Amino acid sequence: MIRKLVGIMGPGETASTVEKETAYALGQAIAKQDWILLTGGRATGVMDAASRGAQSVNGLVIGILPGENRTAMSAAVDIPILTGMGSGRNVINILSSEVVVACGLGAGTLSEIALALKLQKPLVLIHVPDAVVEQCRLLAKVAMVDVATVEVAIAQIQVLMAAEE
Amino acid sequence: MIRKLVGIMGPGETASTVEKETAYALGQAIAKQDWILLTGGRATGVMDAASRGAQSVNGLVIGILPGENRTAMSAAVDIPILTGMGSGRNVINILSSEVVVACGLGAGTLSEIALALKLQKPLVLIHVPDAVVEQCRLLAKVAMVDVATVEVAIAQIQVLMAAEE
Amino acid sequence: MIRKLVGIMGPGETASTVEKETAYALGQAIAKQDWILLTGGRATGVMDAASRGAQSVNGLVIGILPGENRTAMSAAVDIPILTGMGSGRNVINILSSEVVVACGLGAGTLSEIALALKLQKPLVLIHVPDAVVEQCRLLAKVAMVDVATVEVAIAQIQVLMAAEE
Amino acid sequence: MIRKLVGIMGPGETASTVEKETAYALGQAIAKQDWILLTGGRATGVMDAASRGAQSVNGLVIGILPGENRTAMSAAVDIPILTGMGSGRNVINILSSEVVVACGLGAGTLSEIALALKLQKPLVLIHVPDAVVEQCRLLAKVAMVDVATVEVAIAQIQVLMAAEE
Repeated sequence: MIRKLVGIMGPGETASTVEKETAYALGQAIAKQDWILLTGGRATGVMDAASRGAQSVNGLVIGILPGENRTAMSAAVDIPILTGMGSGRNVINILSSEVVVACGLGAGTLSEIALALKLQKPLVLIHVPDAVVEQCRLLAKVAMVDVATVEVAIAQIQVLMAAEE
Repeated sequence: MIRKLVGIMGPGETASTVEKETAYALGQAIAKQDWILLTGGRATGVMDAASRGAQSVNGLVIGILPGENRTAMSAAVDIPILTGMGSGRNVINILSSEVVVACGLGAGTLSEIALALKLQKPLVLIHVPDAVVEQCRLLAKVAMVDVATVEVAIAQIQVLMAAEE
Repeated sequence: MIRKLVGIMGPGETASTVEKETAYALGQAIAKQDWILLTGGRATGVMDAASRGAQSVNGLVIGILPGENRTAMSAAVDIPILTGMGSGRNVINILSSEVVVACGLGAGTLSEIALALKLQKPLVLIHVPDAVVEQCRLLAKVAMVDVATVEVAIAQIQVLMAAEE
Repeated sequence: MIRKLVGIMGPGETASTVEKETAYALGQAIAKQDWILLTGGRATGVMDAASRGAQSVNGLVIGILPGENRTAMSAAVDIPILTGMGSGRNVINILSSEVVVACGLGAGTLSEIALALKLQKPLVLIHVPDAVVEQCRLLAKVAMVDVATVEVAIAQIQVLMAAEE
């Protein structure tokens, strides 16, 4: 049975406390929906917080790692996918997620938001600056929503998944 | 908790009946060990047979697909990882598998065997021509075993995993 | 002798006439500096216009193509690098350019700007909306300049290259 | 004008003196034909020797590097293409070469030979063990020739290129 994968992207080392708290709650909420959480897999920032959140409620976490081994992998990853492709793995993060959630904004996150727009993946933004949200709206050809809470994020993911089917 | 991933590689459209039967039995046996099966994800040959075998006993199957969408994906894949990287995904297959099993030999399989040797991944060969096995032995820097049955394959994977820990 | 590569990134099918005219002039000016032009290689938009500009003055043009063959390649590409990696090739565009020029803004271009910021490549922006320039400035750890003319772009590339040495 | 690219693949650190001498002569001969030499770009073995050979007669050398920077790059590379994709760059080596020459055999070389067979690229083998040549012949769907001298290699590349047109 094909499982539903939801990706959470966001800053690594530069993530703020609020972004990490939101990511943790998002990871929990995604796991409670019985969706699989997909992240970039590293032991830092939004990736790590979301993974720990999902793990805290026995969710399943896939980490798509940039390196060739498990160095610096989040301890909350259940299934490490080792790509050895550096930032090239960002494309895989986007293609493999049914819905992409960007929580906060770093340079890598911006590349993933842009790839989601390019590859026409449904996109949920949270803690993303208004100027970026507006610019993305101009480039978006498919559904893109800007949300303020984890509850609304989950509701929007449900709507976006239903629309894909 | 980090799950153990075992990759099964082998011919697609050109796979023989025996290779597909072995792949089906390998997929079953891998799932019964509570390992996750990783394949190239397409709906053909060894990939598909192994995935159906694992599915038949409620195993979990990850398909690392060459394309950007689910076209031609095996119906037995639970977790599709869409790479959009064509044969570039073969590297991901190898890096992500704790042990790589090659069942039969096609050109793509040969590239995966060679990458396993290059990236020093433990390798189990079954239904691979003797001349190829001998050549690989000359290139192998880590454990590589040639087996004749599914039972021995599973026993060897257990040994190789234990040695990695 | 290591040649200097300058990458020009920009919208494909959605490029405006002004963006394409600027790209053509940039391609010419880059070739006149005896730099090699690097683009995404497709026969459309900024990529194609820049390549034709370079070709018009006998410059050398490298196209880093997303596909596995030359379908839809710009006729002005001298050296096709076929990646078969879709948008994964955007990373190669950025890593291989000594200086990256973004001319105009599409979703793919935004991903390349973001990757340049992430991978700390010197970046020149032209015809990029102010809101995006400002956001990028917040994320930039290395030199990033916003210019209005081809002449200033070339002068800035010279400065950025000198700083790298 | 589209330039013709010929790729030379072969062992790195494990290359023999004879393999390196042949690679040097091949690089020279390829450059004299006004073809561009494409290699894996590292400062070792067959890659480095072929690049130095081409450089000795003012040929143009493209290095498709596995890393994100020029660390360990051959000093004879003119145009570094930085992929950051590790062994994933082997696919790019093969796709971008009009004809692939394998000189000697390492694990990485074997993966490139196999990818050439998979992606149906014309293939010239030199200093490759007979058992491997025979196995490859069974898997080859397009032209594959086994040669003993640089002169015959060049003649065969000419034939293979003419057949492609």
